[in-house]
Amino acid sequence: MSSTSARDSSEGSKLWGGRFAGETDAIMEKFNASIAYDQRMWDADIRGSKAYVLALQKANLVTEDEMNQIVTGLDQVYAEWSGGSFQIKSGDEDIHTANERRLKELIGDAAGKLHTGRSRNDQVVTDMRLWLRDAIGIVKGHALLLITTMVERASREIDILFPGYTHMQRAQPIRWSHWIMSHVVALSRDVEKLDEIRRRVNVLPLGSGAIAGNPFNIDRKLLCKELAFDSVSINSMDATAERDFVAEFLFWASLSLTHLSKMAEDLIIYSTKEFSFVTLSDAYSTGSSLMPQKKNADSLELIRSKAGRVFGRCAGFLMTLKGLPSTYNKDLQEDKEAMFDVYDTVEAVLQIATGVIATLKVNSSAMKAALSPDMLATDLAYYLVRKGMPFRQAHGCSGKAVALADSKNVPLNELTLEDLHTASPLFDSDVSSVWDYSSSVEQYSAMGGTAKSSVLAQIDHMKTWQEKYKH
Amino acid sequence: MSSTSARDSSEGSKLWGGRFAGETDAIMEKFNASIAYDQRMWDADIRGSKAYVLALQKANLVTEDEMNQIVTGLDQVYAEWSGGSFQIKSGDEDIHTANERRLKELIGDAAGKLHTGRSRNDQVVTDMRLWLRDAIGIVKGHALLLITTMVERASREIDILFPGYTHMQRAQPIRWSHWIMSHVVALSRDVEKLDEIRRRVNVLPLGSGAIAGNPFNIDRKLLCKELAFDSVSINSMDATAERDFVAEFLFWASLSLTHLSKMAEDLIIYSTKEFSFVTLSDAYSTGSSLMPQKKNADSLELIRSKAGRVFGRCAGFLMTLKGLPSTYNKDLQEDKEAMFDVYDTVEAVLQIATGVIATLKVNSSAMKAALSPDMLATDLAYYLVRKGMPFRQAHGCSGKAVALADSKNVPLNELTLEDLHTASPLFDSDVSSVWDYSSSVEQYSAMGGTAKSSVLAQIDHMKTWQEKYKH
Amino acid sequence: MSSTSARDSSEGSKLWGGRFAGETDAIMEKFNASIAYDQRMWDADIRGSKAYVLALQKANLVTEDEMNQIVTGLDQVYAEWSGGSFQIKSGDEDIHTANERRLKELIGDAAGKLHTGRSRNDQVVTDMRLWLRDAIGIVKGHALLLITTMVERASREIDILFPGYTHMQRAQPIRWSHWIMSHVVALSRDVEKLDEIRRRVNVLPLGSGAIAGNPFNIDRKLLCKELAFDSVSINSMDATAERDFVAEFLFWASLSLTHLSKMAEDLIIYSTKEFSFVTLSDAYSTGSSLMPQKKNADSLELIRSKAGRVFGRCAGFLMTLKGLPSTYNKDLQEDKEAMFDVYDTVEAVLQIATGVIATLKVNSSAMKAALSPDMLATDLAYYLVRKGMPFRQAHGCSGKAVALADSKNVPLNELTLEDLHTASPLFDSDVSSVWDYSSSVEQYSAMGGTAKSSVLAQIDHMKTWQEKYKH
Amino acid sequence: MSSTSARDSSEGSKLWGGRFAGETDAIMEKFNASIAYDQRMWDADIRGSKAYVLALQKANLVTEDEMNQIVTGLDQVYAEWSGGSFQIKSGDEDIHTANERRLKELIGDAAGKLHTGRSRNDQVVTDMRLWLRDAIGIVKGHALLLITTMVERASREIDILFPGYTHMQRAQPIRWSHWIMSHVVALSRDVEKLDEIRRRVNVLPLGSGAIAGNPFNIDRKLLCKELAFDSVSINSMDATAERDFVAEFLFWASLSLTHLSKMAEDLIIYSTKEFSFVTLSDAYSTGSSLMPQKKNADSLELIRSKAGRVFGRCAGFLMTLKGLPSTYNKDLQEDKEAMFDVYDTVEAVLQIATGVIATLKVNSSAMKAALSPDMLATDLAYYLVRKGMPFRQAHGCSGKAVALADSKNVPLNELTLEDLHTASPLFDSDVSSVWDYSSSVEQYSAMGGTAKSSVLAQIDHMKTWQEKYKH
Repeated sequence: MSSTSARDSSEGSKLWGGRFAGETDAIMEKFNASIAYDQRMWDADIRGSKAYVLALQKANLVTEDEMNQIVTGLDQVYAEWSGGSFQIKSGDEDIHTANERRLKELIGDAAGKLHTGRSRNDQVVTDMRLWLRDAIGIVKGHALLLITTMVERASREIDILFPGYTHMQRAQPIRWSHWIMSHVVALSRDVEKLDEIRRRVNVLPLGSGAIAGNPFNIDRKLLCKELAFDSVSINSMDATAERDFVAEFLFWASLSLTHLSKMAEDLIIYSTKEFSFVTLSDAYSTGSSLMPQKKNADSLELIRSKAGRVFGRCAGFLMTLKGLPSTYNKDLQEDKEAMFDVYDTVEAVLQIATGVIATLKVNSSAMKAALSPDMLATDLAYYLVRKGMPFRQAHGCSGKAVALADSKNVPLNELTLEDLHTASPLFDSDVSSVWDYSSSVEQYSAMGGTAKSSVLAQIDHMKTWQEKYKH
Repeated sequence: MSSTSARDSSEGSKLWGGRFAGETDAIMEKFNASIAYDQRMWDADIRGSKAYVLALQKANLVTEDEMNQIVTGLDQVYAEWSGGSFQIKSGDEDIHTANERRLKELIGDAAGKLHTGRSRNDQVVTDMRLWLRDAIGIVKGHALLLITTMVERASREIDILFPGYTHMQRAQPIRWSHWIMSHVVALSRDVEKLDEIRRRVNVLPLGSGAIAGNPFNIDRKLLCKELAFDSVSINSMDATAERDFVAEFLFWASLSLTHLSKMAEDLIIYSTKEFSFVTLSDAYSTGSSLMPQKKNADSLELIRSKAGRVFGRCAGFLMTLKGLPSTYNKDLQEDKEAMFDVYDTVEAVLQIATGVIATLKVNSSAMKAALSPDMLATDLAYYLVRKGMPFRQAHGCSGKAVALADSKNVPLNELTLEDLHTASPLFDSDVSSVWDYSSSVEQYSAMGGTAKSSVLAQIDHMKTWQEKYKH
Repeated sequence: MSSTSARDSSEGSKLWGGRFAGETDAIMEKFNASIAYDQRMWDADIRGSKAYVLALQKANLVTEDEMNQIVTGLDQVYAEWSGGSFQIKSGDEDIHTANERRLKELIGDAAGKLHTGRSRNDQVVTDMRLWLRDAIGIVKGHALLLITTMVERASREIDILFPGYTHMQRAQPIRWSHWIMSHVVALSRDVEKLDEIRRRVNVLPLGSGAIAGNPFNIDRKLLCKELAFDSVSINSMDATAERDFVAEFLFWASLSLTHLSKMAEDLIIYSTKEFSFVTLSDAYSTGSSLMPQKKNADSLELIRSKAGRVFGRCAGFLMTLKGLPSTYNKDLQEDKEAMFDVYDTVEAVLQIATGVIATLKVNSSAMKAALSPDMLATDLAYYLVRKGMPFRQAHGCSGKAVALADSKNVPLNELTLEDLHTASPLFDSDVSSVWDYSSSVEQYSAMGGTAKSSVLAQIDHMKTWQEKYKH
Repeated sequence: MSSTSARDSSEGSKLWGGRFAGETDAIMEKFNASIAYDQRMWDADIRGSKAYVLALQKANLVTEDEMNQIVTGLDQVYAEWSGGSFQIKSGDEDIHTANERRLKELIGDAAGKLHTGRSRNDQVVTDMRLWLRDAIGIVKGHALLLITTMVERASREIDILFPGYTHMQRAQPIRWSHWIMSHVVALSRDVEKLDEIRRRVNVLPLGSGAIAGNPFNIDRKLLCKELAFDSVSINSMDATAERDFVAEFLFWASLSLTHLSKMAEDLIIYSTKEFSFVTLSDAYSTGSSLMPQKKNADSLELIRSKAGRVFGRCAGFLMTLKGLPSTYNKDLQEDKEAMFDVYDTVEAVLQIATGVIATLKVNSSAMKAALSPDMLATDLAYYLVRKGMPFRQAHGCSGKAVALADSKNVPLNELTLEDLHTASPLFDSDVSSVWDYSSSVEQYSAMGGTAKSSVLAQIDHMKTWQEKYKH
């Protein structure tokens, strides 16, 4: 950048005129600025600054009087934001600049001491961590409410039976509550992981400066305590540029919403005319602009779709991170919109899912009517197993019975004993006991099964779990 | 939904109170609405409706008078939007509803005829195609301007040499203009593909109804002509639900910005102190909040980062599409925000890239100084090839010379003829001609090479190409 | 790498012993080698070399005799590969090395002239383009066969009606053939795009060297003609390192398989017991290890799943490309496994989809039975439109009739004229004509609709299209 | 599937002949089979079966004698696999079928009892969890060895200084060891997360059957203990179909390799001629087929590229999972190849990274030579801060000094005191103390900084951490 090198360079700026002649480019300035979205962190930014000025005072970099001025000024900035009167001005490229600019207007030169030894690099990531920590708390609350609603529903509807499907084909009779609990268990894993992510979010980067650290021996443990972080970041280069906590949150949301996309898919299918197992509340359905009779499960389709949206944010952010050099690069600015959008999406999806589940009508008679004797073919094999036949052979005999019923065009349970004997001589009159759906499900009493005792155990398990995770 | 099924169902809505008791859920309504972003298509929506009412009149579904009322009303709605006075009201869930609601306020009952035989399913996708067609035109214009700027730069700086790198290691001397043209060629492929995508965007879906088609034998060729589409969609079920044109545009942007991420990466490295090949204009750099000496290539880092953002949108949308059943499902609502965000991003990136290139200072003396004799090792091998030695053997001899220079700690061109003879007896005093960087590049005169004639041919090629693609 | 810099460096290799003490690392060698998968391109590699030696001879870099030796040798290498006797040896890190090594064993030193002016950088991408060009031809053939099978099926089953769904809710009666054609149209777009991609694949990079071009003024137009490429690459730096053609193919496959995932999803739902519209052939179903009665649509589930697999390859490759510097970097080695895996997957999926469609049993009586009068509610509104009522109002009246039927718990078509009059006085005895499904579909005679004439027109359109695209 | 429905269906299989006429389709069979890759789990499959037969015996479903036969048979199958003599036969579609088929050959009918109450659904996921648990142990070991190598290197090279960069521009002097530790800290987070994932992998699904659970009240706690799982899955529907543990591992690998892509990017840049900070060992470099002087950092480029590959697998799998209905669907078969490929990749990358780091030569004199006085501009501002000037003002004064040095074309430290006074009157002769790089870094003694004491504390921290995580 010396004049020598300038002289021998081709002077691009003079060759191409128009938009590029001036000192600035309005598109570049807009592209570069983050204030449009990072203003959401105004609260976190002020909290971080209040803690930092306290540490500066302890390190004798500001006097107690200066500290008080700064704190009072920051409180006023806070009041402006929360009262809706804060004015963003041109030149406020991000929330940090905006707050400091305003502070200076309010208290004058002392404001200029606030940034001593601090860099935007450690400031921005401190703000993000404070913000996300709170956001995770809210998300967790919504997830727990959804779980509570589902567990309550499972508990009340414990006696409803319906077909369990694999490959979307009728497989075995199960409890409706067993289906509900299968989704609860997935959500409970999500909540558990959220606690782990929170721990990694809740690490203090402040005091890392731009790259080399803080040169005034600032008391980072004090900052940690003031801002209620769990621990202090270990290395300043890593601390200012790692966004693992964002990536983890984005992926967490992707997997959680994939879980909900599965539940939504089930319910969309169950709410078709052909299945008619459930009916959505009007509040979660919409009509058609063309077809007067339509009632569409829009809420469920939106839930299903959001897994894609959220994973897209995760994919995009990982791709942005790939191959970046160490420390802060402007590429990292992609972190915030991804984080905000994913939070907003998850927060809405969880609440709507709760509403859908809470108001769903379950058509238990249609569910019962969908149970068919062929779903007991496995039980028919087990009948033979209980009579001593190896399972593989019993599976074959039951298969023969299924084929026979099919060829005779009768339901499996209407085969005569004579018919059954062609499949195996072990069949006896007690085979009639097989054709009872309620008895069938009660066999599955091992842990995790669909017997009433087993589902009740799952419900109890989740209630105990909730007590543990509620704080 | 019959009373029978209602009676036997568990009445979810009464069991869980609170937010879910009422007829509506405010969060669901907000989640479901698209007006916040699809209002961008207000213009396309009005254009589509004006064409549709004309077709309705031709089909005698509205009178000429009704048509005139509707057209006049739509013009007024247009005036309100373009004048900034259009008021969105609660209940306007999307731009289509908003415009029709306003039309009705303005002209009364005749407005109710506009939607005859039309569904939101064919309406929304018509609007999107009209919008994206225009957007593609703008993007193409920006891409062509970037190409023009680069070609112009290559033309002016044709004589500057600098190191060509592979694997980021100095490989062979090349022209700076050759480097520029390598990126131009990639961009030209992007423009060519954009034309193909435009053709697939520019297909008329209007007249497909919700799913089954249009029952009033509406003249779709008339609609096609009125709205300047290239062709008419073939099948109504496909037409209302396919979003290939969106997915294609998202991927197009992903690959284009990956190209620009490559150029940005090169320039970021070239603008390090260690390389010092180029200096960014202040308009495209920013300073540091902590380090007074810093001048960061933020513009280039932002460009590099956006490849991730845009591909994230593509990935998210594909994931949303995967496994959806045929025809319209609400999941498709993810299409618009992705399309808008990607357009905005690409539009800004192309303009900023143009500004960066237009104002870049090239430090040709630093570039020249970075050329080193070891980069001519391949030429040394070619010297032997020209004397008749098979290339594989010549490569080996040149390698020996390199190793010898390394062990003697002298530059390759300072080896004596005696030294060189240890590598091959074919070396003679004319080997000195090898050590000229300008001669070296002139060898590469085959099509696509770095000789002046070849680079000029590339420049000519691109100028001719531009003429062809400019319309 | 001078001794000076070596002296002042810390000598890492001595500090850490064990695996890292030696000159090589077996894991690194394996990681670096591509022969395990790139041997698939043996044929393309030999074809490229044969053309190249011809060009070398024209440029007088090999004699005619040497050329003949090389060609004969390459033919022998070809014979060994095609006969299965080619032996890969340790040290053959890729197919290019392996073929050249073997050539040298067969013909001796003349083999060393083959690589004159050529680099692995232009060689490998030439091989890939030759290989992918052929692969695209095969894929296109499979896609066209699938289309033929579907069009044929649509043609034969033109008269079968069944419910059209939107949001998975019964919407309007449509033709089964209309559904088939909706998927055909999507596939036809895929084939059209494949032709465009082929054109971009079919560009000759050979003669670009490592980065700077070819220094012997090789005749690239000759190479182009010999290898049947459509055009010659424009810039050597771009030509050696751009993998747009791979990325495009990966995305093409992602979108195509997303189309097939949609068709598979429909058929999976249609083959549930609850829908019972179609029955898969045993050849495309599998049983259960536990449940004797199960017949699962595994083929369709596999088809559905592959959209994810293939898009994963696309996402991975784009992420690898993002932010790479210009020219060849080893990162590009990710191109081949992605290309091969995606090709293999698409090739299998298209064939299996063809088999599934060709052998599917359609249960037309179940389809007919699933049509219900509420699906004619739109037609009921159109009845009123035809009597002069604005559509919005007619939609409302029809909605009232639907609600009335629901409250009376009768099908919509069993409402009395008296009942209907409470919805609108315009209803008359001719309303009975509405309740005919066959008449209903015949209304949709506009282009793209579900009327017989319209579907036949679609079939004709696709047959004409196929003639055009078959070559 | 009754004859009635068959009669009214169109008989697809007769209409289209050729490949689809027969009972099977070879392509479908190959596509459906997983034995080609899932045979890797032969060991896990046998372990699972041995535990299961024990539980069957406790439940009196097999006799002690039958159990012994089965165990002995399984041991023989194990011996065949480990001895390389196991023969896969046509019909062995997966490892479970293959092992059971062989068992039956060896011991006869008793083998048919092994699958009693078990389904492939719970069997396959048990095998996967056993396999991945072991794989995670190996990966963790490799990660810890890399950390050890890096910590050791940081410890030995504690005194080497070099430029710290942000935005790839020289920022502040830092310790080389500080850079090393920044990457170590990221890796340590990866190891911590691996432990969490292991806990979620290590959950027993066996005893869940196909969907409904186990009907013989099998003792799942016994199975859990026998197979050394940490806990028992809660719900059978969830247990058989959830693949969160796979998705989590794929994402874990994506983020870990993104970390390594960052380190690789740094080292690729540091090993350019222009930087010359490090030299790779020959064992981790490769040459060029064209350019004799080249030595390319292929190992680092491969490491960088694999972040894309691995994330592609993650993206693909998530997309496959999106919107799947509950319970087992064949789509889940995509889980295994993704898991194996990602494991293989991570395992290789970690070992190669260890080799690269262990054998890297560090050119400390080049590093030192790259430090320049402008990097002390922040320290110059701090000099003023220490004299009482607010930081914002001091930053401005230092900026003026930088500009002055630039305009005078002298290094910052060669400005006279007079010059400096034009920036601020507070500058005094003691400003000379600022120009010492060693003193500069020593200022950063707060936790996480680049002072020697602080880096040593990081090293100590990581050593303690390693002790904790080594088991």
